Amino acid sequence: MTKTIIKVDLNQSAYENEKLHNRWHPDIPMAETVKPGDDFIIECIDWTGGQIKNNDDASDVRDVDLTQVHFLSGPVGVEGAEPGDLLEVDILDIGTFDESQWGFNGFFSKKNGGGFLTEHFPEAQKSIWDFKGMFTSSRHIPGVEFAGMIHPGLIGCLPSSEMLNEWNTREKELYDTEPDRVPGLANLPYADTAHMGKMSGDAKKAAAAEGARTVPPREHGGNCDIKDLSRGSKVYFPVYVKNAGLSVGDLHFSQGDGEITFCGAIEMAGWIHLRVKLVKDGMRKYGVKNPIFQPSPITPKYDDYLIFEGISVDEQGKQHYLDVNVAYRQACLNAINYLEKFGYTRAQAYAILGTAPVQGHISGVVDVPNSCATLWLPTDIFKEDIKINSEGPTKYYDGSIDVPKAPDLD
Amino acid sequence: MTKTIIKVDLNQSAYENEKLHNRWHPDIPMAETVKPGDDFIIECIDWTGGQIKNNDDASDVRDVDLTQVHFLSGPVGVEGAEPGDLLEVDILDIGTFDESQWGFNGFFSKKNGGGFLTEHFPEAQKSIWDFKGMFTSSRHIPGVEFAGMIHPGLIGCLPSSEMLNEWNTREKELYDTEPDRVPGLANLPYADTAHMGKMSGDAKKAAAAEGARTVPPREHGGNCDIKDLSRGSKVYFPVYVKNAGLSVGDLHFSQGDGEITFCGAIEMAGWIHLRVKLVKDGMRKYGVKNPIFQPSPITPKYDDYLIFEGISVDEQGKQHYLDVNVAYRQACLNAINYLEKFGYTRAQAYAILGTAPVQGHISGVVDVPNSCATLWLPTDIFKEDIKINSEGPTKYYDGSIDVPKAPDLD
Amino acid sequence: MTKTIIKVDLNQSAYENEKLHNRWHPDIPMAETVKPGDDFIIECIDWTGGQIKNNDDASDVRDVDLTQVHFLSGPVGVEGAEPGDLLEVDILDIGTFDESQWGFNGFFSKKNGGGFLTEHFPEAQKSIWDFKGMFTSSRHIPGVEFAGMIHPGLIGCLPSSEMLNEWNTREKELYDTEPDRVPGLANLPYADTAHMGKMSGDAKKAAAAEGARTVPPREHGGNCDIKDLSRGSKVYFPVYVKNAGLSVGDLHFSQGDGEITFCGAIEMAGWIHLRVKLVKDGMRKYGVKNPIFQPSPITPKYDDYLIFEGISVDEQGKQHYLDVNVAYRQACLNAINYLEKFGYTRAQAYAILGTAPVQGHISGVVDVPNSCATLWLPTDIFKEDIKINSEGPTKYYDGSIDVPKAPDLD
Amino acid sequence: MTKTIIKVDLNQSAYENEKLHNRWHPDIPMAETVKPGDDFIIECIDWTGGQIKNNDDASDVRDVDLTQVHFLSGPVGVEGAEPGDLLEVDILDIGTFDESQWGFNGFFSKKNGGGFLTEHFPEAQKSIWDFKGMFTSSRHIPGVEFAGMIHPGLIGCLPSSEMLNEWNTREKELYDTEPDRVPGLANLPYADTAHMGKMSGDAKKAAAAEGARTVPPREHGGNCDIKDLSRGSKVYFPVYVKNAGLSVGDLHFSQGDGEITFCGAIEMAGWIHLRVKLVKDGMRKYGVKNPIFQPSPITPKYDDYLIFEGISVDEQGKQHYLDVNVAYRQACLNAINYLEKFGYTRAQAYAILGTAPVQGHISGVVDVPNSCATLWLPTDIFKEDIKINSEGPTKYYDGSIDVPKAPDLD
Repeated sequence: MTKTIIKVDLNQSAYENEKLHNRWHPDIPMAETVKPGDDFIIECIDWTGGQIKNNDDASDVRDVDLTQVHFLSGPVGVEGAEPGDLLEVDILDIGTFDESQWGFNGFFSKKNGGGFLTEHFPEAQKSIWDFKGMFTSSRHIPGVEFAGMIHPGLIGCLPSSEMLNEWNTREKELYDTEPDRVPGLANLPYADTAHMGKMSGDAKKAAAAEGARTVPPREHGGNCDIKDLSRGSKVYFPVYVKNAGLSVGDLHFSQGDGEITFCGAIEMAGWIHLRVKLVKDGMRKYGVKNPIFQPSPITPKYDDYLIFEGISVDEQGKQHYLDVNVAYRQACLNAINYLEKFGYTRAQAYAILGTAPVQGHISGVVDVPNSCATLWLPTDIFKEDIKINSEGPTKYYDGSIDVPKAPDLD
Repeated sequence: MTKTIIKVDLNQSAYENEKLHNRWHPDIPMAETVKPGDDFIIECIDWTGGQIKNNDDASDVRDVDLTQVHFLSGPVGVEGAEPGDLLEVDILDIGTFDESQWGFNGFFSKKNGGGFLTEHFPEAQKSIWDFKGMFTSSRHIPGVEFAGMIHPGLIGCLPSSEMLNEWNTREKELYDTEPDRVPGLANLPYADTAHMGKMSGDAKKAAAAEGARTVPPREHGGNCDIKDLSRGSKVYFPVYVKNAGLSVGDLHFSQGDGEITFCGAIEMAGWIHLRVKLVKDGMRKYGVKNPIFQPSPITPKYDDYLIFEGISVDEQGKQHYLDVNVAYRQACLNAINYLEKFGYTRAQAYAILGTAPVQGHISGVVDVPNSCATLWLPTDIFKEDIKINSEGPTKYYDGSIDVPKAPDLD
Repeated sequence: MTKTIIKVDLNQSAYENEKLHNRWHPDIPMAETVKPGDDFIIECIDWTGGQIKNNDDASDVRDVDLTQVHFLSGPVGVEGAEPGDLLEVDILDIGTFDESQWGFNGFFSKKNGGGFLTEHFPEAQKSIWDFKGMFTSSRHIPGVEFAGMIHPGLIGCLPSSEMLNEWNTREKELYDTEPDRVPGLANLPYADTAHMGKMSGDAKKAAAAEGARTVPPREHGGNCDIKDLSRGSKVYFPVYVKNAGLSVGDLHFSQGDGEITFCGAIEMAGWIHLRVKLVKDGMRKYGVKNPIFQPSPITPKYDDYLIFEGISVDEQGKQHYLDVNVAYRQACLNAINYLEKFGYTRAQAYAILGTAPVQGHISGVVDVPNSCATLWLPTDIFKEDIKINSEGPTKYYDGSIDVPKAPDLD
Repeated sequence: MTKTIIKVDLNQSAYENEKLHNRWHPDIPMAETVKPGDDFIIECIDWTGGQIKNNDDASDVRDVDLTQVHFLSGPVGVEGAEPGDLLEVDILDIGTFDESQWGFNGFFSKKNGGGFLTEHFPEAQKSIWDFKGMFTSSRHIPGVEFAGMIHPGLIGCLPSSEMLNEWNTREKELYDTEPDRVPGLANLPYADTAHMGKMSGDAKKAAAAEGARTVPPREHGGNCDIKDLSRGSKVYFPVYVKNAGLSVGDLHFSQGDGEITFCGAIEMAGWIHLRVKLVKDGMRKYGVKNPIFQPSPITPKYDDYLIFEGISVDEQGKQHYLDVNVAYRQACLNAINYLEKFGYTRAQAYAILGTAPVQGHISGVVDVPNSCATLWLPTDIFKEDIKINSEGPTKYYDGSIDVPKAPDLD
């Protein structure tokens, strides 16, 4: 029987659990230590630490305190790991808690977080997704049910001091180019809400003041939000500090490529079962800078797609130069326009793109001046037929069910 | 027996074949006309019109005249098609010519075209790929063989005058922001090398002066370079002019997502077998702006991957804000660094990423300030094992075989 | 939180749990009743009721009491179900118990059960498989690890009296053609070890005397041992009695097509999460006699195969007429001979064919006089390369690890 | 440009082409000889040698002369091949002739050939299938279109004298158990219609008198009718004579597992592109008796199935002992009954099962006394929705289109 080395209590404040942390810093003490070859289970709270509730009121999404995110479980020390090694991690399984069979997806207010289509969806909205075994559906979105491709949104090892310094420096430089921007160009260290695991006193204060925020993905992996890093994957993480210090959190029941809604995937609490090994000196041997992984042999088969194209001409008709972001945004908007014809509200369509196993491909990046991106919408997640036929679309839904919204308070 | 409505002669100049053209313009007369429900075959020359030869000398890539590209076959008129319709196109098959069982991949010189990694590969290089039935391999790259996912790099309908005008206007605006840039931010109309199909005299002159270049993908599809638009796909194209005017060319035997080498995929001459139908008033009914397609039921299964991550911090360590292009570039460089450890030269690795069925996913676009992109390298295309193990990589190749290079002449 | 309507205690005798039964009879009272649309969880013991232990001694397999099998959980009544309906069952999930992370595979002695290759493996053997999340491996078989395609070996609704009578009649007729055969041509009702759920007294005695054994698959489904009926499947079962009476058991962590080792798959205790609906009068509407199902969207991808052919000429060179059984037996023996060359013992190879996601295809059934069957061996379940190359096979294992055997006693 | 080493003329009698043959015998001279590593193209006529025509009259199927089949192209000698080697064959591609874009499927009369369901379909019927690129559809079966999984029904090397003798002996023994049966239990040598390639005179006469018929699959492969041996596969064939002598024919555009209609698949003329290599002494090294193969990386994706179960109780309710043939027959009949509810005639349904990429799995072979077989019907080949829903099936077709029948004459 596999040991659960980190436990969580969903009714307890994350700050009271010293095996959690919400910043990256080399000095955070190991919460537990394991040996190469061991497998073990880690429990995780949701990324916001329980700020979002299972109800029909989106005000919690609107009012979320993003300085607290993401609460991670760890770090887990691996005996014998040294800087320069690769930490091989098998994600043996991921699951939900019996008492927490639901997750949430939300659009942040443009004033507090935003998202990929924040100009089109400037106010906070929230959909709740119920889990029934491997499947999920939402009471806020009719006619959609699918099996989850469960994965950790965030996983990686502790940075070294040098790496932390590099992160803080380059992000500060970017931030300083437009310091008054909302949302900011980067999230700088912020001590007030930092949770540094077992640290306390002055050491904690010092570390909190410089601990990197968990929002962006970085060299160590971190908040990559890669839907294909799902249970059954094998990942090789760069090691920067003695004993590696692997932390994980931000579990997702399912997500589309890009996690476009930002809040973002179907966010959940749950547990993850891992096995670790070491490839000594692997970073040099294999020329590794960022994590490398092999996808899982067991992922849902949603492989009948409608594929939407987008090019790097924006909504106002302005030409951008080989900009994949603009192109992918157009592909997303094209898919939303399409789904609207079948009776989905625009918010529902946006939520579907954020949560379902949608693929986003970088299709062309050299054909000056337009990039081409494609959004792959799986058709088998829909109860009704949403393909094109010569008669035109059927409007299956009348909009009476929708994704709850919480207008900004101003 | 299906009729071949457009034929090509690989030994003839493209300019002598009036069923070819290399600009987009509503006035180009239909080369042939078909009825809804018809299926027919169209032959195509390679996109450069035969400028690149099957030899070991890359000077033809270095000296290519890019103002001539792309030579398209068409336009094919479809009776009854009207602006606002969707043209449903089944790509029933694509094949090679018996006498032309090869294709090419190249890196353009930074001074003449460039490419996605042009800073790293500033000089012209070329690899030749031989076809053996469904499979291809290159004498310039050892240990790689795979089945092709054949597709047209470029396909779409003629623009209306209004649309053409919009294209020219917005691209000119971009071009003008940095008119001296090499390569230019956009390719503006260029009459000298324009081939306007059956047009002649003053009408041709006028059209050539404003005909849009074929390089970028646009609303109509065009040069999308989407590897998944392969034989067996069903595509819905917006129609802008009477009888639609479908043109096609730039056939690829195989390509990776992004077509990162620009010259680009495994470029070939060949034929394409199409069937057309109409969805009347389909653009409005389905809210369509760009083409939508369903992928083929028959594509090569290369589904064991090594996945490389990249974030939007560039090679110099500079932080970019949510820039997928930078992130994908890093993922590509990570893959090149990795393949080098197994004995591939960097040019070979780059060519592999451009030609093999590599996937490029937009993995995260909201985690400020880093985008995350992933490059999926199929492992089954390699004769040797290129996965990570605890002993480290085997250097299978010594670099004695490489991709021919033609230094700039300056 | 989904309700667990049937619970089991692995330390209790199956006979003490009145929500279990091991015979088919229309009079067995419903253990629980649910409504159409409900989802619920059912716990199951292993098919032998705990007779096989997690140790290295195969005598429990040799001495197994097969008159006791299979212990099923149920029957579950569905309100409103009537004879002639189809009961739609979504298998939402299947899992293991935390305290029972293992399963077993065995070959029965030829004198007590036998198996598909019993002439070649006449004595009892047993392999134990450990579960690590979604994956399994056996300490008795080196170099094999794979994700399980978990499924119930046995599931179906109660027969009507007429159907039960038909079963008993036709099986008795077969049995009587060779009544002294060991093993018997059929397993007739046997009251001594019958467990009839909540029944007691004379009613139980009467039902036990005629209750059909659970071994064969029949019109209602029952012991189909179809590996693809895995979690995520949707099945339509014929209904023969009021309220349907759905029972389930014989959970398998994984199995090859044919369940050729008879004891058989990787047998386990665990739980299954189901959702039920009704298609009224569905048997007539859809012409249904046996269950129909749709496979799961989420199954392990082990799709690189070595395929072995077999024809209906037996091991002694005797020609059989279009006999798929003989052909499949030859394909199995061909695979065993092949695996032996890599150092596997014949027993290990046999166990692999019984447990791994091996496919067995009926490839040709009309080419007089030979049937052709194919066995598809997935290559990705092996740590080492087992494909053919020009140098010949590497003998990875020396036979020092093997599948424990318990010789017959007399 | 790959060389076509064997050519056929569809307007010429097969007997006039000395690079064809229709019996297996070690003395048949090599039609052509190649070297290991060579790739080459071989043209093939259809298996009947042109007896079946593209029309709506099934009398040619009724009156077919089955003593003539199958016309094979070859044998192709491979330099250096010796008995005991494995001949590695890459099926690089398979295609149709421009002038012959069609194939046929038929049910033989019970009096002349029969088939798997001949008791249910005792009279000759024929459907014609048109090819449009990779796709096929039949004017005799509405609402069905799919991509072909092209493969050779028959391929293998010449037998040695010893092997030939073994074949003839064991098949004669079977035949003699019921010599008056129609159709016969086996097809014995028959000199009258034998075509022995380049042989002539007495040598030919002698060989013709003992040449094995091509109907059954045997140790060398031969008429395996394995749909998955499709283009892109790699096959290892046992070699029995000097230079191997590889012959091939009976090309199929598509086929279901079992080739249940016997005439059988979508039969066609066409060409096949092969590459050969040798594994010296491979039969011993790898313990090979029958061919082993790896499936193609490029096969049509029709992976949404309705799965029908069958058990070994026959149509009359009689219990058979673990008989997969009976079980598969029931699964086929269950599928036919089901398709009838949607308006297909029984003959159309039977033809679909014979031609479409249907899978037949050996699901359970040990659960005494019933075998369980499953028939996997791909749902995406149907234009209309044929899944189960609560309302019941829609009858899409009225039977006005059907598969032509030619009643027996006397």
